[in-house]
Amino acid sequence: MPQYLAINAGSSTLKWRLFAMPAESLLGQGLIDRINHSHATVTVKVPHQPDLTYTTATDDCRRVVADLLLRLKQLGLVSHLHDIVGVGHRVVAGGEDFNQSVVVDDDVLLRIRNLRNLAPLHNPVQANFIATFRDVLPWATQVAVFDSAFHQSMPPTSYLYGVPYNWYQQYGARKYGAHGTSVRYVAARTATLLGRPLDQLRLIVLHLGAGSSVTAVKDGRSLDTSMGFTPLAGLISATRSGDVDPSLLAYMMRKLNVTADRMVDLLNDTAGLQGISGISDDMRILSAAAAEQPRAQLAIDMYVQRIVQYVGAYVAEMNGVDAFAFAGGIGEHSSAIRAQIMAHFAYLGATIDPHANTNNGNETDLSTTDAPVRTWLVPTDEELMIVRDTYRLATGQ
Amino acid sequence: MPQYLAINAGSSTLKWRLFAMPAESLLGQGLIDRINHSHATVTVKVPHQPDLTYTTATDDCRRVVADLLLRLKQLGLVSHLHDIVGVGHRVVAGGEDFNQSVVVDDDVLLRIRNLRNLAPLHNPVQANFIATFRDVLPWATQVAVFDSAFHQSMPPTSYLYGVPYNWYQQYGARKYGAHGTSVRYVAARTATLLGRPLDQLRLIVLHLGAGSSVTAVKDGRSLDTSMGFTPLAGLISATRSGDVDPSLLAYMMRKLNVTADRMVDLLNDTAGLQGISGISDDMRILSAAAAEQPRAQLAIDMYVQRIVQYVGAYVAEMNGVDAFAFAGGIGEHSSAIRAQIMAHFAYLGATIDPHANTNNGNETDLSTTDAPVRTWLVPTDEELMIVRDTYRLATGQ
Repeated sequence: MPQYLAINAGSSTLKWRLFAMPAESLLGQGLIDRINHSHATVTVKVPHQPDLTYTTATDDCRRVVADLLLRLKQLGLVSHLHDIVGVGHRVVAGGEDFNQSVVVDDDVLLRIRNLRNLAPLHNPVQANFIATFRDVLPWATQVAVFDSAFHQSMPPTSYLYGVPYNWYQQYGARKYGAHGTSVRYVAARTATLLGRPLDQLRLIVLHLGAGSSVTAVKDGRSLDTSMGFTPLAGLISATRSGDVDPSLLAYMMRKLNVTADRMVDLLNDTAGLQGISGISDDMRILSAAAAEQPRAQLAIDMYVQRIVQYVGAYVAEMNGVDAFAFAGGIGEHSSAIRAQIMAHFAYLGATIDPHANTNNGNETDLSTTDAPVRTWLVPTDEELMIVRDTYRLATGQ
Repeated sequence: MPQYLAINAGSSTLKWRLFAMPAESLLGQGLIDRINHSHATVTVKVPHQPDLTYTTATDDCRRVVADLLLRLKQLGLVSHLHDIVGVGHRVVAGGEDFNQSVVVDDDVLLRIRNLRNLAPLHNPVQANFIATFRDVLPWATQVAVFDSAFHQSMPPTSYLYGVPYNWYQQYGARKYGAHGTSVRYVAARTATLLGRPLDQLRLIVLHLGAGSSVTAVKDGRSLDTSMGFTPLAGLISATRSGDVDPSLLAYMMRKLNVTADRMVDLLNDTAGLQGISGISDDMRILSAAAAEQPRAQLAIDMYVQRIVQYVGAYVAEMNGVDAFAFAGGIGEHSSAIRAQIMAHFAYLGATIDPHANTNNGNETDLSTTDAPVRTWLVPTDEELMIVRDTYRLATGQ
C-alpha cells in the first residue's frame, strides 16, 4: 500500500508520521528534538514495538531528513524509499495566498518563503524541509498544508483590525489565525458525531494546548478565530500573553527600556500561564500547585476566563450555537478545565454530565441527556488531516 | 438654594454645568473649546434664554476660570460667588488610589498629578483646574470624581493581563477602564426602571459614543469592562483602533518607521471609524454614506461586530444577563446601530420592538412585551452624577 509522510517542522523540532493510504493506518511516528544542537534527541514509536530513543548530529535540514529516511528503512517501516509517494508538510503562514492545501512547485515554495514576515520562526524552516524532501524524494508529491488556510473564509469584519485601512492593503495587517488544520478536522468530526450536516451547524471549536484558540465555525467555514496577525493575540497560552491593551506595549517598553521586537518576544515567551503564575507554563503543574499557590490558581482562572469570553463572543456573533468541541492537550485531558469553562454556559443550556466529563483522550459526548446545546470531546489529529490532503492531491481525487 | 458646579476638563475643552442642589435643577451649562488657542470659543446655554456664543483669550487655566465665573454673574445665574459651595471635577485616571469620589486636599491633588502616567493628556490639566478653583473659590468643597473609580471593583481575573505578574506589581500594568461615572449612573437608573434591586441584577451597559465601551455590571459592581490600561483597548471608537494583536505594533513600527509612542498615537487618533472608512469618524456621516460607500458600511459593521463580541463575552462571564442598557451619543440616538447589535441576541430572548426602537434620546423600554431579557435606552448624565457626589460629600451625607 502506498505510504505517505506527514511532516510537522517547528523552529527546533520535527515531528513525523508515516501512514499507509488510503487505509489511514499509522505505521510509525517520531520526534526529532533540538535540531540545531550538535546532539539532537530522536524518538521513534512503532506500533507493537518498544519506543526507540537516540541522539544524533542533526545540525542541518539534509542530515535530519537523511537520518529519518535511513531509520524508516532500518526499522523495516519502508522497504524501498519509492514506496513513499507523498509528503505533506505543515506550514504555519499561508497569508492570503493560500486558502487550501496545495501541491508544492517552485512558485509555491517561493511564496512560502516570501510569507516569512508572518511567521519568521516557522516559514523559512518549513520551506527548507520542503525543499530538502523534494530533492531527496523527487518522485513523491509534496503538499503544503497551511495552519491559516481554513480561516481564509473569515469575512472582512472578522479579519480586519480597526486600524487605517491602508495598513491592510499595503502591509497585510490583518488577522490570519492559526490551528486551522486542527479546527477543520475537529469541526468535520463533530458534525459526524452529531449526525448532522456540517454546513448547517454553528460550532465553537476550543483547541486548548500550549497554544490555545477558540474558533467560530458556521456552516462549515471559519467565521472568526481568536488568534490574530500572529498567534500572540487572543487567549492566554502557556507563555503567550494573549490580548493586551496596545498602549501597554509602549508604556512597558519605556519602563523596561526594551525595543518593540524585544517586547513582543517577552509577550510571546515569558507571559501567559508562566508569567502570571511565576511557577510554570504547564497546566498540569499549575493544577497540582493551585491549592497551595494562589498565583497558580490565578493563572488557571485567567486562562479559563479568557476562553469563556471568546466562546461567549462567538456565540453572540453566530446568534446562538449548536455544539462545543474540546480538543488539544488541555482540552482533551483536563476534566477540571472543561468543567470550569462549561459552568459559564448554563444560560445556553449547554450543561455537561460530570461523569461523562471524567473521560479524557477519547471521543465523548460530554452533554447531559437533554442539553439543547451539545458539548463533545473530540481529540484532534492534524497529521491525519495533512496526510488526507496529501493523498487527495497526489491521487487527483 | 446652594449652587454646585460640575467641571469636565479635557485636553483642550472645558464643559461645565451649574446645578441648584438638592433640587438637581440645571441652571446653565457651557463649553469652552480650543483652550490654549488665543481665541477660544465659548458657548453658554441657559434654560429659556437664547444660546450665547463668543470668543475670548483663554490661554491659561486662571483666565478660563475667571471668564467662566464672571459670565455666571453677568448672566445672573449666580448672585454672589459665595453661592457656589461645591465644585465637582471629572478626573480620568484614579488608578488604584481611588475607588470612589473624594474631597480634594493637598494629598489628593498630588496623587492625581502622580497618576499622569495613566492619562498624560488629562490628569495634569484636570489637576490644574482643580487647583485653580481651590484658589478662586476657597470656601467651596472641591470633589474629584474618577472615570476609573467604579471599575475598581473588578476582580484580578478581569483587571490583570496575561503578562509577567511583576509588570503589575512594579509598574501598575493592569486594566483600569473608563466611563465609570456614566456606567454607574446608567446601571442604577436601569435598576430603577426595571423596578428591581441593583444588587441582584446582571446588567450590560453599552456606553456608545466617540469613545465606546461595554461593561458587565453584576450585583451593582463593575465585573469587567472593555477599555483597558487606557481607553485605547476594547471596542472600535471614532478614531481609536480598539484591540489589535500586540505583535502588529512591532510589525507596523518597522513598516512605517515610527516609534512606539507614535504608533500608539496613530492607533488613538487615526484609526477606528476614521481609519477603516477613510471618510469620517462620525457615525452620522458614515450612516448617511453607507449605501454608496462600501468602506463606510464596513466601518459600521466592524464597530457593531466588536460590540456584539464584548456583549457576548460578558454575558458568558456572568452566565446570563437580565438587561441591556444603551447610553452615549450613538447608543442614545442611533436606532439603526441598536437594532443591528440586538439582532445578534435573539438566542437570549433579548428581542426589541422595532417601533419602540424608533425612540431616541429618552428613557425607553425597547423590549418586546414578552422578552425575558430586557433592553432599555437610558440616556446617561455624568455631570449630574458628579454633582450628586459633590453634594453628598460637601454636606456630609
